Amino acid sequence: MIPILVLHGPNLNLLGLREPQVYGRMTLEEIDRRVAQAAEPLGMQVRSLQSNHEGVLIDALHEARGWAQGVVFNPAAYTHTSVALRDAIAAIDLPVVEVHLSNVHSRETFRHTSMTAPVCAGSIAGFGWYVYVLGLHALKEILQPAAGA
Amino acid sequence: MIPILVLHGPNLNLLGLREPQVYGRMTLEEIDRRVAQAAEPLGMQVRSLQSNHEGVLIDALHEARGWAQGVVFNPAAYTHTSVALRDAIAAIDLPVVEVHLSNVHSRETFRHTSMTAPVCAGSIAGFGWYVYVLGLHALKEILQPAAGA
Amino acid sequence: MIPILVLHGPNLNLLGLREPQVYGRMTLEEIDRRVAQAAEPLGMQVRSLQSNHEGVLIDALHEARGWAQGVVFNPAAYTHTSVALRDAIAAIDLPVVEVHLSNVHSRETFRHTSMTAPVCAGSIAGFGWYVYVLGLHALKEILQPAAGA
Amino acid sequence: MIPILVLHGPNLNLLGLREPQVYGRMTLEEIDRRVAQAAEPLGMQVRSLQSNHEGVLIDALHEARGWAQGVVFNPAAYTHTSVALRDAIAAIDLPVVEVHLSNVHSRETFRHTSMTAPVCAGSIAGFGWYVYVLGLHALKEILQPAAGA
Amino acid sequence: MIPILVLHGPNLNLLGLREPQVYGRMTLEEIDRRVAQAAEPLGMQVRSLQSNHEGVLIDALHEARGWAQGVVFNPAAYTHTSVALRDAIAAIDLPVVEVHLSNVHSRETFRHTSMTAPVCAGSIAGFGWYVYVLGLHALKEILQPAAGA
Amino acid sequence: MIPILVLHGPNLNLLGLREPQVYGRMTLEEIDRRVAQAAEPLGMQVRSLQSNHEGVLIDALHEARGWAQGVVFNPAAYTHTSVALRDAIAAIDLPVVEVHLSNVHSRETFRHTSMTAPVCAGSIAGFGWYVYVLGLHALKEILQPAAGA
Amino acid sequence: MIPILVLHGPNLNLLGLREPQVYGRMTLEEIDRRVAQAAEPLGMQVRSLQSNHEGVLIDALHEARGWAQGVVFNPAAYTHTSVALRDAIAAIDLPVVEVHLSNVHSRETFRHTSMTAPVCAGSIAGFGWYVYVLGLHALKEILQPAAGA
Amino acid sequence: MIPILVLHGPNLNLLGLREPQVYGRMTLEEIDRRVAQAAEPLGMQVRSLQSNHEGVLIDALHEARGWAQGVVFNPAAYTHTSVALRDAIAAIDLPVVEVHLSNVHSRETFRHTSMTAPVCAGSIAGFGWYVYVLGLHALKEILQPAAGA
Amino acid sequence: MIPILVLHGPNLNLLGLREPQVYGRMTLEEIDRRVAQAAEPLGMQVRSLQSNHEGVLIDALHEARGWAQGVVFNPAAYTHTSVALRDAIAAIDLPVVEVHLSNVHSRETFRHTSMTAPVCAGSIAGFGWYVYVLGLHALKEILQPAAGA
Amino acid sequence: MIPILVLHGPNLNLLGLREPQVYGRMTLEEIDRRVAQAAEPLGMQVRSLQSNHEGVLIDALHEARGWAQGVVFNPAAYTHTSVALRDAIAAIDLPVVEVHLSNVHSRETFRHTSMTAPVCAGSIAGFGWYVYVLGLHALKEILQPAAGA
Amino acid sequence: MIPILVLHGPNLNLLGLREPQVYGRMTLEEIDRRVAQAAEPLGMQVRSLQSNHEGVLIDALHEARGWAQGVVFNPAAYTHTSVALRDAIAAIDLPVVEVHLSNVHSRETFRHTSMTAPVCAGSIAGFGWYVYVLGLHALKEILQPAAGA
Amino acid sequence: MIPILVLHGPNLNLLGLREPQVYGRMTLEEIDRRVAQAAEPLGMQVRSLQSNHEGVLIDALHEARGWAQGVVFNPAAYTHTSVALRDAIAAIDLPVVEVHLSNVHSRETFRHTSMTAPVCAGSIAGFGWYVYVLGLHALKEILQPAAGA
Repeated sequence: MIPILVLHGPNLNLLGLREPQVYGRMTLEEIDRRVAQAAEPLGMQVRSLQSNHEGVLIDALHEARGWAQGVVFNPAAYTHTSVALRDAIAAIDLPVVEVHLSNVHSRETFRHTSMTAPVCAGSIAGFGWYVYVLGLHALKEILQPAAGA
Repeated sequence: MIPILVLHGPNLNLLGLREPQVYGRMTLEEIDRRVAQAAEPLGMQVRSLQSNHEGVLIDALHEARGWAQGVVFNPAAYTHTSVALRDAIAAIDLPVVEVHLSNVHSRETFRHTSMTAPVCAGSIAGFGWYVYVLGLHALKEILQPAAGA
Repeated sequence: MIPILVLHGPNLNLLGLREPQVYGRMTLEEIDRRVAQAAEPLGMQVRSLQSNHEGVLIDALHEARGWAQGVVFNPAAYTHTSVALRDAIAAIDLPVVEVHLSNVHSRETFRHTSMTAPVCAGSIAGFGWYVYVLGLHALKEILQPAAGA
Repeated sequence: MIPILVLHGPNLNLLGLREPQVYGRMTLEEIDRRVAQAAEPLGMQVRSLQSNHEGVLIDALHEARGWAQGVVFNPAAYTHTSVALRDAIAAIDLPVVEVHLSNVHSRETFRHTSMTAPVCAGSIAGFGWYVYVLGLHALKEILQPAAGA
Repeated sequence: MIPILVLHGPNLNLLGLREPQVYGRMTLEEIDRRVAQAAEPLGMQVRSLQSNHEGVLIDALHEARGWAQGVVFNPAAYTHTSVALRDAIAAIDLPVVEVHLSNVHSRETFRHTSMTAPVCAGSIAGFGWYVYVLGLHALKEILQPAAGA
Repeated sequence: MIPILVLHGPNLNLLGLREPQVYGRMTLEEIDRRVAQAAEPLGMQVRSLQSNHEGVLIDALHEARGWAQGVVFNPAAYTHTSVALRDAIAAIDLPVVEVHLSNVHSRETFRHTSMTAPVCAGSIAGFGWYVYVLGLHALKEILQPAAGA
Repeated sequence: MIPILVLHGPNLNLLGLREPQVYGRMTLEEIDRRVAQAAEPLGMQVRSLQSNHEGVLIDALHEARGWAQGVVFNPAAYTHTSVALRDAIAAIDLPVVEVHLSNVHSRETFRHTSMTAPVCAGSIAGFGWYVYVLGLHALKEILQPAAGA
Repeated sequence: MIPILVLHGPNLNLLGLREPQVYGRMTLEEIDRRVAQAAEPLGMQVRSLQSNHEGVLIDALHEARGWAQGVVFNPAAYTHTSVALRDAIAAIDLPVVEVHLSNVHSRETFRHTSMTAPVCAGSIAGFGWYVYVLGLHALKEILQPAAGA
Repeated sequence: MIPILVLHGPNLNLLGLREPQVYGRMTLEEIDRRVAQAAEPLGMQVRSLQSNHEGVLIDALHEARGWAQGVVFNPAAYTHTSVALRDAIAAIDLPVVEVHLSNVHSRETFRHTSMTAPVCAGSIAGFGWYVYVLGLHALKEILQPAAGA
Repeated sequence: MIPILVLHGPNLNLLGLREPQVYGRMTLEEIDRRVAQAAEPLGMQVRSLQSNHEGVLIDALHEARGWAQGVVFNPAAYTHTSVALRDAIAAIDLPVVEVHLSNVHSRETFRHTSMTAPVCAGSIAGFGWYVYVLGLHALKEILQPAAGA
Repeated sequence: MIPILVLHGPNLNLLGLREPQVYGRMTLEEIDRRVAQAAEPLGMQVRSLQSNHEGVLIDALHEARGWAQGVVFNPAAYTHTSVALRDAIAAIDLPVVEVHLSNVHSRETFRHTSMTAPVCAGSIAGFGWYVYVLGLHALKEILQPAAGA
Repeated sequence: MIPILVLHGPNLNLLGLREPQVYGRMTLEEIDRRVAQAAEPLGMQVRSLQSNHEGVLIDALHEARGWAQGVVFNPAAYTHTSVALRDAIAAIDLPVVEVHLSNVHSRETFRHTSMTAPVCAGSIAGFGWYVYVLGLHALKEILQPAAGA
C-alpha cells in the first residue's frame, strides 16, 4: 500500500458547522472516512492530520519525508499568505497536490493568489469533499503512471 | 451514457510537438483516445473538439447546450484573456470543469490569472494529459453524487 | 432612408436564454424586429449582424464603409479586451455608437474598462434592449443635427 | 405630465463660453429651452437646476424625492470624485440617468472613472447637448415601458 | 452574567514595557483587571487570554463557541495578515468586536489594512486600554439592544 | 456640563428612509434625541448639526474651537475623499472621534480608506446609532481619564 | 492698475493658529495686508477672498472673468482632489498661478499630486506667505513681459 | 530560394485608407509587391497573408512549420493582447521577427506592451512599410550568418 | 553682495534651439545675462554653471558650500530620476530653490514626480526664463526676511 | 562572555537536505557548532534555537530580554510576511541583526520585501552559513565599538 | 557620403568578454569594423563612440547636430532610466534609431521599458551585432526613401 | 596580499559633514584609514576610490578586472536607480559585496529597492563605517573559505 499524508489546514476542523453555504455540511471526520475508503481500491493508505497552527503543518510536512510517498494538502487560509509552507513543500522531495473545497477563484480577490501552488505538483479546486479523492487519483498517476503513457 | 464535450483551446493541436519540456510528448489524438477510453467505465461518452479560433470555441459551448450534460474545457491561452469565453460559460447551464496540462501557477505571471475559472464549477491543473480524466471524474461526482454524500 | 449597421458581439445570440436577471428575457430576434420598427420613423433602415467571432465583427465594420452611414455596436465581452476592434472602429470613417444592455459600471471591475469607447462617437449603457433605439436617435442627431443647433 | 429634474453640475453655467472645442457653443439656457421643448411630446415636464456646490446638488436630489419621478443628471467634474453624490443617488428611490456632453472615455484618464454611474439606472455620453434628450427618452422607457416589451 | 471572551494577540503580553510612547504604560494584567471590573455593572463576566501563537488564537475562538456569547478581540499584528483568523471569526456564530489600542490609521501604511475587520461586527481603535471597555459596551448593545431602539 | 459637538455628514438627514438594510430604520432626529439622553449621565451636553455641504462641516469644526471640548464626527461619504476636512480636524485643537454607523470595512473597497481617521483621536464603526454613544464614552475617557489609569 | 484676484482655499482662515510648525504664525489678515502692499509698486490692485466652500471658490473664479486680469490661487486641500476647480480654472480665460505656503513635496504622499496645476500657468510652493508676492511677480511677467524678452 | 511567410494582422487590409497620419498612404498590395521585390536579391521568396481573425493567424503560423524557414510578422492590435499568438510563435520552431509600421512606443500606453515580442527572435518598429524589408534582412542574418561572424 | 549659484541641468545648453514650443526661444547665455542683471538690485551676485553630467552637478553643489549662500537649481531631466542629486542637496547646508521653465505638471506623467523637490526649500515652475528671477526673489526672502514678518 | 541568542526561522532545520543549490550542504547542527566556535574569540557565548512556529520565535525574542545582550536572527520565510515578529523585535530593547543565507534580492520578488529589517539594527545576506559569523561581528561592534570610533 | 554617428552606451566596451551567453563573443572593435564596412555600399560613413558616462553620451548627441545626418544609438542600460538622454534625442533635429543587441523583451521586466524609444524614429532589437547594420538601412530609408514610395 | 577595491558612490566624500544623524561623524578619510588597517590581518590590501560620477564608478569596476580579486562597493544613491552599475557588476567576473552605512530599510521607500544587489554576492547594511570591515570579512570567506566548510 502507498502511504499518503492527507493534511488539512486551519478552520477545517469546523467543517459541516462553518458557513455551510460555502463549504457544505459534511464534517471533517466524515470526509476523512470517505477518503480512506476511496484510497483502498487505489492501493493507497492515508493518514490524516488537521491543525490550525502553521508550525504544526510545517512539522507534519517535514515528518512526511520519513514515511509518506505523497501529500494531498488543503492549506485553507494559509494558501494565500504562507511563504513558510511554500518553503516547506519545496524542501521535502514529495509530490504535493493542493486541494480546495470551494472554487477559490469565484470568492474574494485575496483568495485568488496562492503562495503554495507554484511549488506543488498541481492543484484541484471547487468540487467539495471530492477534491481529496481527485487528489489521490492525481498522486496515483504521478507515482504510477498508466502503462503506455 | 452521459454525453460530455471535451473542448481543447488554441495551440493544443500541436501537443507532442510543441515545447515538450512543458507539455509532454503525447499528441492530442492520443490524449483523445485515452480520455474516450477512461470515460467508458464512468458511463460517459465524450465528443472532442479543438480549435484555435475563440469564436469557434464559443459556438461549441453554445451548441453543447443541445446535447451535452457537462464540459471538460482546456481554454489554454484564452484562459487569461477571454471575457467572451467567460460569458459563454456563464450563459450555458452546464457544469464546466477547467483543466490545464501544466501547473500554470509556476509559469509566467500572466498565466496566474484566469478569466474563466470564476464561472466554472472548478479547476484542475498540473497533471499533464491526466487532467482530462480527473475532469471526467469531477463531472461524474457533480452529475451523480456518490450515495450518502 | 439612412442605412445603418446594427452589430451584436459575442454571446448576444443567447439573449433571452442567458442570465435573464442581468440581460432580460427578450430574444435577439425580437430586439432586431423592434429596432427595425423604431428605425423607420427616424428615416433609417437597419441591417443586423451577430457574431461570436472577433474577426467577423472586424470584417463587418470594414464592409460597412461601403454601404452604411453609421453603426450601433454592442461589442459585449470584446469591449473590455479588443484592441483590434478599437483599431477597426478608428479605421473606418463612420460614426459608431457603443451600446450595452446592462449598466456595466455596476458589475465586475473588468467591465468598467472599455477599449472601444474612446474611438466611438459616444456610449449608452443600462437601459436594456432600448439602448439600440437610443443609439439610433444619437446617430440621427450626428448625421442630421436638429435645425438651429 | 411626468415631472423630471434636470440637474447640471459644476462649471456647466459657463457652457458656450468654456472650451468650445470640447463642449460646443450652445449656452446652458439654450440647452434648457431645447430640453423643455423635447420633453413635451414625451409627456414630461422638466425643472432645471445648475450649481457649482456639491451640497446644493445633494440637496436638490433629496428634494426631488418629493416631486419628481426621475432625474437626468450631468454631474460633470463631481462624477469622478463624489462619494457623497453617489450616496445621495442611492438614497433616493428615483431612476437617475447620468449624462455627459463629451465622450469622457477619450479624455484624461481620471475622467474614465465614475463614482456615480454604478448607482444610476444607466449612462449616456458623447453626443453634446442631445444627451439630455436621450436621457428623457431613457427615463420614459423606464417609467412607461413600450407595450409588449 | 453574560460570558465574554477577551482575546489579546501577539506581543500584547509586553504591554507597559514595549514602546510606551505608542502603547502606554499600563500592563496587560492591569488592563485585564480593569476590564473585569468594568464588565460587572454591564452584567458581563470576562475570561481573558493572550497568545503570540496564531494557532492558539484560532483554537480559542473555536472553543468560545461552546461557552461565550461574544468576543472582544485585539488581533494586534495578525490584524493585517491573517486570513486564518478572518476565517475563524467568520466560522463561529458569535459577535466579535475588533479593538486596537493605538490609532492604526496614523501609523505605517501596512497597519491601515485589516483582514479581520470585514467579518467582525465592528471595530474600535485609538483610545488606549479603554477600547476594551468600549468593546464590552458595544457587545452589550448587540446582545441586549436598548429598549425602544 | 462638558459641551460636545455631534456632527453628521452628507445624506445622514435621510437616515431611516435611505437603504435601511445598511443604515437601519431610525431617523436622525431620533438618534439625536437618544444621544442627548445618553450624554447627560456622562456630564456632557451635546449640540448636533447635519449638513450635506463640505464647507459647512468645515465651518462647524472651526467654530467648535470657541465653545466645545470635543467632537463626535460621522463624516459619511466625505470620510473617503476630503483632504479639506482632514486639515480642518488637524487645525482645531480638539479631540475628534470618527464614527460610522455601518462596518465600512465590509462594504465597497473605496470605503476602506479614511482621509480623516489619521488625524482623529480614534474611530468606531459598525454598531449602528450606538456608535455616537460609544463616541461620547471615548471622549469622556480622553477628557477625564478614569482615576488611577 | 491691474486688477488681480487673490483666492485662498479651505482652512486658510485659521492661519497663524493652525499647525504653526507647518504654516507659520502669520494670520491671513496680515498676509492680505502685506500682499496688497507688495502689489502697489507692481502696478497691481488685489481683491482677496477666502472660503472653505469648494462651490464658493468656483463661483469666485467664474466671476473673476468679469473684472480681474489674473489670479493668485492657493487651493489648499482642494489642490489634490478637486476636478471641479480644475475645470473652473480651464474654463476662465485668465492666467492662474497656483501657490502653496509649505513645500507640499516634503509632506504626505497625497499632497504630491495636484489636480489644478496642469491647467494653471505655473506653480510656486514652499516660501511661506511670500509665495503670494512671487505669484504677483509671475503674473506681472505674464501680462507685461519684460521688454526685449 | 528561402521560403518566408509574411504575416499581416488585423486591420492592415485597410492600409493606405486608415489613419494615414499614423500608417502612411501605401496600400497592403503595394507593400506586398515591394517586399516580394526586395526578397529576391536576398535569395528569399515570400508568401503573404493578411487576416483579421486571430485563429486564422494562429493556423497560418502552424502551417508555416511545413514550408517556411522564417516569418516576418506584424501582429498589429493582437500584439498587445494575444497570449494565443504568443504560444503559437513559441510552439513552432521557426525564427519569427515582429515588425510594426509605427513607433508603438510613442503611442497609447497599452501599445507599449507586447505579448509576442518575448518569444520572437527580435523586433523592429517605426520605419513604415520598410520594416518588412528590415525583417527579411534580419531573417537572412539569422538563417545565413555573414561569414566570419 | 550675496553670492548665489545658478545651476542648469542637462540639455539646457540647447535652450533657444531645442523644442521652442516647449522651452521658448531665448538662449541660455541670454538668460544668464538677464538673471545677472536682475540679481543686482537684490544685492546678489550670481555665478552660473550648466552641465549635462550628473556628477559635475553634484560636485558643483558640494563646492557651493564653500562660497555661495544659496542656489537656484534647474535639475531638468535629472529632477525625476536622480537620488544622487537629492542626497547632494540634502547634504549641503544651503537653501536650494528648484525651478523649471515649463509647467512640468501639464507634460508627460514621469515629469510630475520630483526626486529633488522634497529636500529643496521650495519650487517654482512654468514661467519660462523668469523662474530664475523668481528663484532669486525667494532666496532673498529666505536669507533676509522682510522686516516685521 | 556576552550572551547572544542565535535564532533560526522556519524550515532551517532541513538545512543541508533542502534545495542544496540554494542553501548549501551544511546542516544546521554543523552551522551552530561553527558559530559557537567563532563566538569564543569575540568574547561571546551563543544559545541557538530553531522553530517552524512563528509564536515560538516571538516567545524566544521576548525571553531574550531576560538573558541576552543581542540577537542574530534568520527569520527565513517569516521575513516577508510577519508583522508579529516585527513588533516583537521592536518591543524588546536588544540589537537584532537580520541574516539570510542566500542573496534574497536575486530570488523571487516576494523575497525582496522584509517586514523585519526596518526594526533591526542592520541586515546581512548572501554569504551562506558565514552570515551568522558576520552577524556576531556586527553585534560586537554595536555593543563594544572599536576604540576611537 | 552620408555622415552617421554610431553611439554605444555603458558597458558595451566589455562586449565579447561580458556575459557572452547574452551578448555574444564579438568585441566592440570587431563590431565597429563590420559596421563601417557595411556602411560603404549604403553611401554612408560612420564615426563610432562608446562611453560609460551619461553626460558624455548627451554631449555626443548634441555635437552630432553639427556634422551627422543620423544616429544609430544603443543606449544600453541608460535606455530604461535616462530622461536626460530622452531629452537630448528630442532636442537635436536628427533621426535616431534605437538598437539593442539582445531581445530586451525576453529579459528582466525593468528592461521592457524604454525612456528613449518614444522620441526615436524607431527601434530594432534582438539580432546581435547585426542590429547596427539594420539601423543603417533604416536611416538610409529615412534620409533617402526608395523611389516611388 | 589579496588586492581589493573599496568603491564609494556619490556624496560619500561629504561623510562626517553631511546629515550626521543619519551617517555618523566619521570622515571618509578616517574610514578609509580604518578599513586599510582592518584589511591587513585578513591578508588583504585595499585601494579606495570615491566618485560622484556614475561613469567613473563604472570605469573603476571595469578596471578592477585587471588587478583586484574582489570589491566592497557602497553605491549610495545609485543603488536605487542605476541599471548601468548593475550591468557593470554583472559584466566583471569578481565578487562584489554591496554595503550601506545606514539601515536603508528603515528610510524612504525608494531606498528599499536595490538595482545592484541582485548581481552582487551579498549585501550588508546598517552598521555604520563597520560595514566595510564586514565586507572584507565576507570577501575573505568567498575567496578563501574556512577549511572544512
